[in-house]
Amino acid sequence: MTNLEKMGQNAVNAKYRLQLLTTEEKNKALELAANKLLEKKADIIRENELDIQAGKEKGMHPGLLDRLKLNEDRILAMAEGILQIVKLPDPVGEVMERFQRPNGLDIEKRRVPLGVIGIIYESRPNVTADAFGLCFKAGNAVILKGGSDAIHSNIAIANALREGLQEAGITADALQLIEDTDREVTKAFMGLKEYVDVLIPRGSAGLIRTVTENSTIPVIETGTGNCHIYVDESADLAMAAAILKNAKTQRIGVCNACESLVVHKNVAERFLPMAKEALTESRVEIRGDEETLSILPDCSKATEEDFGTEYLDYILSCKIVDNVEEAIAHINKYNTKHSEAIITENKENAEKFLQTVDAACVYVNASTRYTDGFEFGFGAEIGISTQMLHARGPMGLKELTSYKYAIRGTGQVRP
Amino acid sequence: MTNLEKMGQNAVNAKYRLQLLTTEEKNKALELAANKLLEKKADIIRENELDIQAGKEKGMHPGLLDRLKLNEDRILAMAEGILQIVKLPDPVGEVMERFQRPNGLDIEKRRVPLGVIGIIYESRPNVTADAFGLCFKAGNAVILKGGSDAIHSNIAIANALREGLQEAGITADALQLIEDTDREVTKAFMGLKEYVDVLIPRGSAGLIRTVTENSTIPVIETGTGNCHIYVDESADLAMAAAILKNAKTQRIGVCNACESLVVHKNVAERFLPMAKEALTESRVEIRGDEETLSILPDCSKATEEDFGTEYLDYILSCKIVDNVEEAIAHINKYNTKHSEAIITENKENAEKFLQTVDAACVYVNASTRYTDGFEFGFGAEIGISTQMLHARGPMGLKELTSYKYAIRGTGQVRP
Repeated sequence: MTNLEKMGQNAVNAKYRLQLLTTEEKNKALELAANKLLEKKADIIRENELDIQAGKEKGMHPGLLDRLKLNEDRILAMAEGILQIVKLPDPVGEVMERFQRPNGLDIEKRRVPLGVIGIIYESRPNVTADAFGLCFKAGNAVILKGGSDAIHSNIAIANALREGLQEAGITADALQLIEDTDREVTKAFMGLKEYVDVLIPRGSAGLIRTVTENSTIPVIETGTGNCHIYVDESADLAMAAAILKNAKTQRIGVCNACESLVVHKNVAERFLPMAKEALTESRVEIRGDEETLSILPDCSKATEEDFGTEYLDYILSCKIVDNVEEAIAHINKYNTKHSEAIITENKENAEKFLQTVDAACVYVNASTRYTDGFEFGFGAEIGISTQMLHARGPMGLKELTSYKYAIRGTGQVRP
Repeated sequence: MTNLEKMGQNAVNAKYRLQLLTTEEKNKALELAANKLLEKKADIIRENELDIQAGKEKGMHPGLLDRLKLNEDRILAMAEGILQIVKLPDPVGEVMERFQRPNGLDIEKRRVPLGVIGIIYESRPNVTADAFGLCFKAGNAVILKGGSDAIHSNIAIANALREGLQEAGITADALQLIEDTDREVTKAFMGLKEYVDVLIPRGSAGLIRTVTENSTIPVIETGTGNCHIYVDESADLAMAAAILKNAKTQRIGVCNACESLVVHKNVAERFLPMAKEALTESRVEIRGDEETLSILPDCSKATEEDFGTEYLDYILSCKIVDNVEEAIAHINKYNTKHSEAIITENKENAEKFLQTVDAACVYVNASTRYTDGFEFGFGAEIGISTQMLHARGPMGLKELTSYKYAIRGTGQVRP
């Protein structure tokens, strides 16, 4: 049995124990784990310093160094994140449906934890605490595999959380962190199907592709967002400009940011200068099709590749269309099924857009930036699913559960 | 673009059209497709004869030849199966939840088709019609890949159904069958992630393993069932014997049949002879642990492998345990998360078993044979899911759908 298989077995043992915990027991453990983070903050900051040092030596970008950096405030925020999860309702045990069959069988559909969740993530060490908190509250054991850049920080955080679990009298194996940052280990992790029920990659499009291509464990794809805003003929153009500005520039580099603008030809001449104006402050580069260039001559030309790109940067592609149908076809061709918006005063077009655009979240007259577990009122999220199976859009606690059928009979046999 | 990619593109085009169909339009198309099966029955039987001939030449087992065989009655049954699907409620469009956020956003969780479903199956050609009917009613386009043994039958059935769709004025590409039976094509099909949203393998454990190991498309695992019946200390032993007989012998070779018996030590001496008696008529071979052998000396000895085997045959493994906890641990170690039953009069043990046994369907005092879409009242099923993601247990029309969030605003931007 390899080390990894042993971790898998530990996680399976832990999952059976977690399933029996009451909500109170889980909340108590989360509180102790959060306290332990604060108690160990000096250790965590010291270990984080090693990661920062290594990052500087590697010439890591200042922005990334900042994301990696931990200080007292950030550790406090991590602990508070866990305490917020304590306040959320426990989804486990909910009776989702219950029905009787004519033969007297009583069938109850009951919400249960997924079991063992594997999470592969990059960059920010706070994911270690966040992901643990959510998975644990939903009754799951987790095996975490963080990025090598944050390995010392991640180990320190995981150890603190595990100590908290132990203090609560709960097996520390509810949270395990893979400390070996070798790529071969990551690959072996993706093959741990016997022990791990679900694998969730969190990070770049490249990471997510690698996981979906190599994992034999069922995967929930998260994150990539090539999101569009379509400005319809009947749009309130001032509203459209405000929403575009918000969706494109309020926070760059997030998956629900707008990457592409689609405009009805009949309003393009009026709207494009307004769009340009709205994006000037943030110096957004617009890459447009021929029609866009004829209105905004100093734009650069968009290539086919541009329309398929999630820039995560101050760049926006732009396409002019003849009608809402062409807008929908364009979006369905290039999008990543994340979040799409139409700005329109025409109800029929709004409903057509809602029905036909293939995305987890489809908006009428609102910013795509609202695709977020907190904004949806879920209290937290583990990521945004962009696949069709299991869960779509923001994934909160409920989406970290499955169900089973509990069936009570009185001796029924099948005729 | 390969032929397969072209089929993928056709399916994507079809899925966008299917999403717009009303329930009436879908039902009309299903009726025409069912009629076309009857109209073309002579063609289908003639093509089926080619498969039967080839099977005989290959020395195919008579049981398999019988499963492959089509005649008027069986084609009628296929058509009737589709007409039954017409009567089932359409899950698409259901508003699953709707809530308002404090900022005025109106969020509607709406049931939508999965999109493009790929199905890889073996043996019986009736799956071609069944799988199409269910997927289509739930608004999905399907790409089917049947076994080479039934290729002529499958082509004839698919062509008839496609003609029916065309007659209904609906794109025939709602149903496509991969006619090339080369293994490389099957492998390429599993990589068609760009076009196919979900892949469902239906068949042997070997087929399912191959698909989960090779597919980059999200997979729903179905079917393998190493199902247990645990006879508790307090069981009504006559009921236990009747349920065991039913679960083991009522239909051999199905995934919800019992493969293993687990017995509390305090009733083993009384129950094992009753179990043997119940299984005598069907000449079931019992393979037991040491304790079983001491009570039933002419049994053979069960190996570790026996406990992990889905026999699909007249063989039953048997294990004696000290208590319900040991029974649960044994089951969770060896089962395939399909269907498990406890026979007991002790309510506490029943609830413990329901809560702790990790399976899609957990029974108290009933036969595992009830794990079935029809028996659950779903009207039909595409298979029994044995994984944690998306759906567990019998998968009916609802389980062939996903959801999207339709969000209506009045210009909201994120602060």
